[in-house]
Amino acid sequence: PEQGRYQAEMRYDMNKQKKITIDGFILRGSVIYSETPEKLVTFEDAYLVCENSLSRGVFPEVPEEYKALPLYDTGGKLIIPGFTDLHLHAPQYRFRGNGYDLELLEWLQTYTFPEESKYRDMEYAEESYALFTDDLRSGFTTRACIFASAYPESTLLLMEMLENSGLKTFVGKVNMDRNVPDYYVESTEESIARTLRLLEEIKQKGFNNTKPIITPRFTPSCTMTLMKELGKIAEEYDIPVQSHLSESLAEQKWVNELEPDCSGYGDTYKKAGLMGKDRPCIMAHCVWSDEKEQELLKNNRVFIAHCPESNMNISSGTAPVKKYLRDDQLVGLATDIAGGSSASMLNSMKNAIQASKLRFRLFDEKLPPLTFSEVFFLATRGSGAFFKRACENENVGSFENGFSFDALVLDDRSIPGLRPGLTVTERAERFMYLGNESYIRGKYVSGKKLF
Amino acid sequence: PEQGRYQAEMRYDMNKQKKITIDGFILRGSVIYSETPEKLVTFEDAYLVCENSLSRGVFPEVPEEYKALPLYDTGGKLIIPGFTDLHLHAPQYRFRGNGYDLELLEWLQTYTFPEESKYRDMEYAEESYALFTDDLRSGFTTRACIFASAYPESTLLLMEMLENSGLKTFVGKVNMDRNVPDYYVESTEESIARTLRLLEEIKQKGFNNTKPIITPRFTPSCTMTLMKELGKIAEEYDIPVQSHLSESLAEQKWVNELEPDCSGYGDTYKKAGLMGKDRPCIMAHCVWSDEKEQELLKNNRVFIAHCPESNMNISSGTAPVKKYLRDDQLVGLATDIAGGSSASMLNSMKNAIQASKLRFRLFDEKLPPLTFSEVFFLATRGSGAFFKRACENENVGSFENGFSFDALVLDDRSIPGLRPGLTVTERAERFMYLGNESYIRGKYVSGKKLF
Repeated sequence: PEQGRYQAEMRYDMNKQKKITIDGFILRGSVIYSETPEKLVTFEDAYLVCENSLSRGVFPEVPEEYKALPLYDTGGKLIIPGFTDLHLHAPQYRFRGNGYDLELLEWLQTYTFPEESKYRDMEYAEESYALFTDDLRSGFTTRACIFASAYPESTLLLMEMLENSGLKTFVGKVNMDRNVPDYYVESTEESIARTLRLLEEIKQKGFNNTKPIITPRFTPSCTMTLMKELGKIAEEYDIPVQSHLSESLAEQKWVNELEPDCSGYGDTYKKAGLMGKDRPCIMAHCVWSDEKEQELLKNNRVFIAHCPESNMNISSGTAPVKKYLRDDQLVGLATDIAGGSSASMLNSMKNAIQASKLRFRLFDEKLPPLTFSEVFFLATRGSGAFFKRACENENVGSFENGFSFDALVLDDRSIPGLRPGLTVTERAERFMYLGNESYIRGKYVSGKKLF
Repeated sequence: PEQGRYQAEMRYDMNKQKKITIDGFILRGSVIYSETPEKLVTFEDAYLVCENSLSRGVFPEVPEEYKALPLYDTGGKLIIPGFTDLHLHAPQYRFRGNGYDLELLEWLQTYTFPEESKYRDMEYAEESYALFTDDLRSGFTTRACIFASAYPESTLLLMEMLENSGLKTFVGKVNMDRNVPDYYVESTEESIARTLRLLEEIKQKGFNNTKPIITPRFTPSCTMTLMKELGKIAEEYDIPVQSHLSESLAEQKWVNELEPDCSGYGDTYKKAGLMGKDRPCIMAHCVWSDEKEQELLKNNRVFIAHCPESNMNISSGTAPVKKYLRDDQLVGLATDIAGGSSASMLNSMKNAIQASKLRFRLFDEKLPPLTFSEVFFLATRGSGAFFKRACENENVGSFENGFSFDALVLDDRSIPGLRPGLTVTERAERFMYLGNESYIRGKYVSGKKLF
């Protein structure tokens, strides 16, 4: 299992009467994945088949056709789909855990812009992005959508590191031509030129695992001119878009002042051609989106990235995710480093439940709290569905037949105090509360074993 | 440093002209402690002196009089006071991390009572309490106030284990004679008899580190007759009291129905002689205490144990701790295993800040969120002050001269990505967000090195 994919035994295609080599392996363990937000599917001591980087499903016995594949017995460990982190900032990694005394707009000016501007320095970028990449690689995240800094050089470096990590990622150089300090702001032309240059360089590199994504920071730091140009680039290069939306009340108010001709914050992106529809698009937060904005999100098939820890840390509030699920919004989960302090999606899941319970008790008793089943869905299929939209129908976040084989093997029984007789779901829930990276015993992305 | 206290060199008492042996040692590192909720005191690369189990203060150079003491250089590590966990349930340890789909009263019936009743079985108790004690011993907690089960035999076993751990603890056998399932409820007489028997056995044991505390579970499960008897026992044996108060709205409502002659939940304890005043007393939660109850708490010098994770997990809400601090209430911090999933006071600190921010944004913008300085105070001096009340003026939770030498040595710099130039406070704040038990490099309680 050390060398990634396996050249397995031969099998015969009876029609064509010739040998076919199949790539694959089988993991034996206790498997759990989401079918819907309400429904977890579990298997006690079962066989999970990987063939040509895809899951072929979970079986009580090894099916005849896969008997030739190598079998790895985890000894009853938990096997879960990898998590997709739908929103985080790589150049904020170094200051995670500090600076949560301020709210969003002051936090950006005081802590974020000074730190991100250091990524002009390739030496600092190399050191820091290596730490960031290693954290992601060794943790629960198998896929991620990442904001880099405004600098194309260090963004390309980050993409190279992520390419080599084996993780599947989208990475965007942020664009911003207003309301950012002189030492970090771009002119509109520079922002566009840098973006185009980077996209050409990425083409040359021919990355397999990491792809570009158009990344206007957010309306307060982007003129409508810049945003419209970015919309055109996204279309021309046929790449997805990510940004922030309605994270804090003060931010929302500011956008209304900055763009009085738009009918709301969401409308600013819509007007610029950056709001989904036929183009895959992620909007982070959506804490304070009103009904009209929620409708805009839904009609344009925008993915909402819920960032519960970040929204607590900088006092933004917390999004009505239960409503988003009920309304069939596309919604996933994210760590939002460094608004969030932890790159662990496990923490995000826990925080999503906890924040929803406080929201329920203190703010709106009509909207019940999120359940374990729902946050598990958000972290796997909910977030993963973005990759299906953005990567030619690649299925992500489950072990159903045809889904990308992204898997984590977890040694939950090494967490002291396990009681006998827990169901697989209870073991997974317990792991969410008590587990951490040190209990990961195996990690696979698209059938490739990272460790 | 392996053998606990050190027999240090001699020094001369110049008046009496004879040799005095002093017990002590010096730690060199970066030290932080609270002076008030608003004020953290920090020392970069300083010398913390322990003499006869007490801190003698922190010095930029080793004072002349202590030059003979052995010096242990931590290499610039963080040195902080140990944390006091003011409220947790030992027999709930095994099911932490499961069962947070229910609110308090249903949670007790469905998960808690069945699990606690297993502690009738001494084999299960021994296995489980060993895990619990080991978790506490290896973590951030140096002192704790603990609920055991209703069974005196396994409670005594827990106390023996805690005695040997070196931690300083209060442990109470819970009392409950109503509204508890048959398989676990006590008769009033049995509850009293068990309590008296246990107190006599504890006397025989002559414990140094662990002490008894009178522990009515909460008014819904204790008749007024039982509570009054417990009040008398507390007075007769001169021991402190711990219970729960106004954790959830449904619980509060139920108490009003059960005890219509009392003017509120807090008054039920007051009437029974269990509400502080000259007797040290902890009331856990106080999430929904109204102004009148808050006044009762203050007038009776009751310690409020704030349990932020538990209050989120079972959807209780979150207490107005900032107000309690402003009102000079006695308030400390707690994990409340297993309403809380984690025995880590570090998590409690983080959760206290995060919950206060959601409370601020969603519920009451007039009460600002808690700061790092405030939660550090709560976990050290705030909680520690209970030991001063309950243990003959032992000072706990600081490194000022005369405080018990409870200390943790933390290797915060091993957490990836430390930026140069952080202040000691910033390092400690970062550790709260990113650290865990694996970064503890030394732990002292009353000058004794646990590891």
